[in-house]
Amino acid sequence: MRIRTIDWSKGAIKIIDQTRLPREFKYIYIKSLKELWQAIKVMQVRGAPALGAAAGLGVYLGIKDLKTDSAARLKKELDRVISYIGSSRPTAKNLFWGLERMRKVFLLHKDKPVAKIKDYLLKEARQIMEEDRVACRNIGRYGAKLINRKDTILTICNAGILATIDYGTALGVIYRAYEEGKDPKVFSCETRPMLQGARLTTWELNKLGVDVTMICDSMAATLMQQGRISKVITGADRIAANGDTANKIGTFNLAVLSKYHGIPFYIAAPESTFDLKIKSGKSIHIEERGRKEMTELFFRHPIAPAGVKVFNPAFDVTPHDLISAIITDKGVIRPPYIKNIRKIILK
Amino acid sequence: MRIRTIDWSKGAIKIIDQTRLPREFKYIYIKSLKELWQAIKVMQVRGAPALGAAAGLGVYLGIKDLKTDSAARLKKELDRVISYIGSSRPTAKNLFWGLERMRKVFLLHKDKPVAKIKDYLLKEARQIMEEDRVACRNIGRYGAKLINRKDTILTICNAGILATIDYGTALGVIYRAYEEGKDPKVFSCETRPMLQGARLTTWELNKLGVDVTMICDSMAATLMQQGRISKVITGADRIAANGDTANKIGTFNLAVLSKYHGIPFYIAAPESTFDLKIKSGKSIHIEERGRKEMTELFFRHPIAPAGVKVFNPAFDVTPHDLISAIITDKGVIRPPYIKNIRKIILK
Repeated sequence: MRIRTIDWSKGAIKIIDQTRLPREFKYIYIKSLKELWQAIKVMQVRGAPALGAAAGLGVYLGIKDLKTDSAARLKKELDRVISYIGSSRPTAKNLFWGLERMRKVFLLHKDKPVAKIKDYLLKEARQIMEEDRVACRNIGRYGAKLINRKDTILTICNAGILATIDYGTALGVIYRAYEEGKDPKVFSCETRPMLQGARLTTWELNKLGVDVTMICDSMAATLMQQGRISKVITGADRIAANGDTANKIGTFNLAVLSKYHGIPFYIAAPESTFDLKIKSGKSIHIEERGRKEMTELFFRHPIAPAGVKVFNPAFDVTPHDLISAIITDKGVIRPPYIKNIRKIILK
Repeated sequence: MRIRTIDWSKGAIKIIDQTRLPREFKYIYIKSLKELWQAIKVMQVRGAPALGAAAGLGVYLGIKDLKTDSAARLKKELDRVISYIGSSRPTAKNLFWGLERMRKVFLLHKDKPVAKIKDYLLKEARQIMEEDRVACRNIGRYGAKLINRKDTILTICNAGILATIDYGTALGVIYRAYEEGKDPKVFSCETRPMLQGARLTTWELNKLGVDVTMICDSMAATLMQQGRISKVITGADRIAANGDTANKIGTFNLAVLSKYHGIPFYIAAPESTFDLKIKSGKSIHIEERGRKEMTELFFRHPIAPAGVKVFNPAFDVTPHDLISAIITDKGVIRPPYIKNIRKIILK
C-alpha cells in the first residue's frame, strides 16, 4: 500500500483530506492560497513535516500566476504569501522553516528572469518533499535500533505517513522496526480533541499491517502500571536548543507517566523541527484553538452545556529532562541536549 | 436549584436520565428490575454513592410485588434479585454495600410477616438515601477545611449531585467551600470515553453558579505545568484497606501528574466506598466496557476504523502513596492509611 500525503499535481497541491478519515480516503486539489490556509487551519493537512511541504508548495502556488516581469514585484507578493501562510498555525517549526527556505531560494536567484525564479521555487518545494522522504527513512533507520523484538510502543497523535510525505517520524521508527521483523505492537492514544490517534494513526497502521490498539488518552497510565508499555515514541512540532519539545497536547502527560514508570520516552523528528534560536520551551508559542473542537466533538454533536468555558491548547511542552533521546535524521541525540543538539543539528 | 438524582416515587425508582444530559434534563421512572439493570449498565444512573441507593431501591423494587406469605420464598427471590443487580457493574463498592444492607435487614426481620419485611426493606432503602445526604454534607464540611480562598481545583468524571443523592463527594467539598465564600474555581476533565466531566460536572457546577472550565483529559498536565491547579479532588468507586483507590479511568493519571508537580491529590468518599476485606488495589476487579463507547464517541458517529482493537477499562487504581488524604464523612484520613483507615472506618 502506497500512500502519499501531499504532492504537486495538475497545477495544484494534492492532499489527502484528513478530516474525512477514517470514513473516506479522498484526495483533494488545492488551487488557491485561501484554500490552503483553510486546509491547514482545519487540519485537512497537518503534521509538522507535512506542513513544511505545504509551506513550500503554498509559496509556489501563491506566486505562480503572478503576471509580472519584475523581481521586485515578485518579492513583494512572495513576502505577502509567506506572511499569510505563516498565520495559519503558529506552533510547528517546519511550517516557518519551509517558508524561509523558499525566501532564501528567491534571494539566491532574484537577479534571474521571473519565470526562471518561479521554476526554482517549484524545484525547491519539490526538494523539501524529497528531503522529507529521505529524512523520515533515516529517522526510521536510526530509531529502529532502539526497538527490541516484541516491544509494545505507545504513541500519541499521528506522526506517521499522514504527518509527513509518505513514511513518518515516530511511526517511521515503528515501520522500520516492522520491516526488520521486530514485530512491534502499538497502542495509539486517541488524542482528544481532534482524535488524530483514533482516526489517522490506527487507520494507517491497520493499512500497513502493524498491530495497533486504540486507547483513550487517560488510559495510558493504566497500561504502564500493568507493565504493558515498553517504550513511548512521539513526534514533535518544535524542539528548542535545550531539547524542550512542543508536540500535540497530551505528550507532556505521557512523558511524566513514563518517568514515573521508568519507561523510555523518545521524540522523533527531522532537523527541520529544531529551532535553535529558542533557548527553552518557555518561548514556544502554543496555539489555542476554538471551543467547538471540544464541546461538539469531531462531528457537531454537543457534549457539553452551551456556553461552558473551555481551555483548548493544541500543544504542550515536554521539558528536556523527561526525554530519553531525540531520534533525528542525523542520528540519535541523547542528553545533555544543550551540548549534543548543537553537535548534530547544524542550522 | 434543587436537584435530586434518585428517589422512590409512585411505586418506581425515579432517576434523572443522565445519558440525556446536558441536552435534556428529564426524570424517568424505573418499574422493573430489568430496566434498572439496564439503567445502571448504560449509566442513566451512575456514581458510586448513587449506585448504593439504586441497589437498595432495586432490591425493594424486585420483591415488592412478590405474592407470597413465605419468608423463605421471599428470601429466595431476594437472593436472586441481589445477585442480578450485582451483575450490572462490578467495580463500585457501594453497589454491593447497598445490596448487603438490604440482605441484613431481611435477616433481622425474617420472622416477621412478609408484608412487614417488605416495609422494612423500603425503609432501609430510604435510610440509605438519607444517610448519603448526611454523609455527603459531612464530607463537604471536613473537606472544605482543606480548601483555601481562590483555590483552583481539578476534578475528573462526576462526583457531584449526579453521583449521589443530592450533594456530591468531591464536588460536595467544592460546594461547601463555595457556600463558605471561598470562591473556588474548578477545571473539569471531560472524562473520556463517556464524558461525564464534560456532560455532567460542568452542567451541575454551572447550575449552581460555581466557576467551571472544561478540559480534555490530556490537558491536565499543561495546566499543572502552568501553575494553574492548586488541588486535585476526585471521588472513588472502591478503596482498599491500604488506601489504594479505584476510580474513573484517568484518576491514576492525575495522581501521577500531581506528584510530579507537588500538588495535593485528594480522594473524597463516604464510608460505604471502603472495602476493608481487600488488602490492596491489586484485588479490585476493573470493569472493561464495550468498544463502541470509544470508537463511536457518545452519539454513534464512528471516529476510528471499523474493527480497530480497543482497550476500554472503566476504572483505574491509584496507589495509596500518591494520595495526600482521603476525605470521608467520618473525617479526613491521612497516611499511613493501613493504620489510619482502620481507626476511622469501622466496618
